[in-house]
Amino acid sequence: MALWFDDLHVGLSFTSTTHTLSAEEIVAFARQYDPQPFHLDDEAARDTLFGGLAASGWHTAAISMKLLVGDGAPFAGGIIGSGGELVWPRPTYPGDTLRVVWEITELTPSRTRPDRGMVKVRMETRNQRNEIVQVFSPRLVVPCRPQS
Amino acid sequence: MALWFDDLHVGLSFTSTTHTLSAEEIVAFARQYDPQPFHLDDEAARDTLFGGLAASGWHTAAISMKLLVGDGAPFAGGIIGSGGELVWPRPTYPGDTLRVVWEITELTPSRTRPDRGMVKVRMETRNQRNEIVQVFSPRLVVPCRPQS
Repeated sequence: MALWFDDLHVGLSFTSTTHTLSAEEIVAFARQYDPQPFHLDDEAARDTLFGGLAASGWHTAAISMKLLVGDGAPFAGGIIGSGGELVWPRPTYPGDTLRVVWEITELTPSRTRPDRGMVKVRMETRNQRNEIVQVFSPRLVVPCRPQS
Repeated sequence: MALWFDDLHVGLSFTSTTHTLSAEEIVAFARQYDPQPFHLDDEAARDTLFGGLAASGWHTAAISMKLLVGDGAPFAGGIIGSGGELVWPRPTYPGDTLRVVWEITELTPSRTRPDRGMVKVRMETRNQRNEIVQVFSPRLVVPCRPQS
């Protein structure tokens, strides 16, 4: 699957495969990038907002990206974004099974470059209870189908 | 250093230590979380917007978090945020030396919980040429100094 800008429409949506997080993975990521007690140790996390060992938000974000591009990036040219609003409504815990549900919310042809367009996407990361653990709303650049 | 909400003021700023990214690190992170050609292979990245091997934005974000909490989280209770606006104005390349410069932009005591406040922070990640490669503007929850 590799969609060009021409192939897209507002409302187009897709659900990724899943990834189940282990406590070991959560701790390994946190050791490298977010070494705070509540991401490293279940005991230390008990008395915090999390109530138990929880994944770094950046770990949830990285796994969401992996799920998005895992089976091959859905858009021609890959997923290239300049950022967007990122929200973590609730934590990710050991044993949670995550999937990403994305939907196209806005399409804007480039004014200066007729060979590409801007695509606004809402990416929800949901756990096995269908609770949203992350929402990321990036703007991506997607090329138009090359003229033959 | 562990600042309570009472210790903070708008304009308070701080610069982290630095981290220099290698091509090997960029590829290792991308293999696990963002396996797109331009994050895996210099040759494959030549003809893309990046012009050469570039780090996943999520890798820049993870390293920024590491720099922020690396020497101990600056705020009492750690860095706990529910998200914010995330922007990558330019890519991170192999050999880049990153640091994080953060500044408090807003302080709001909690209306319902007198023991904590909301802190808005602007976190800029800058490279060795002082170019901004990431801006993240999260809202954090910071506890007030316990009453004795």
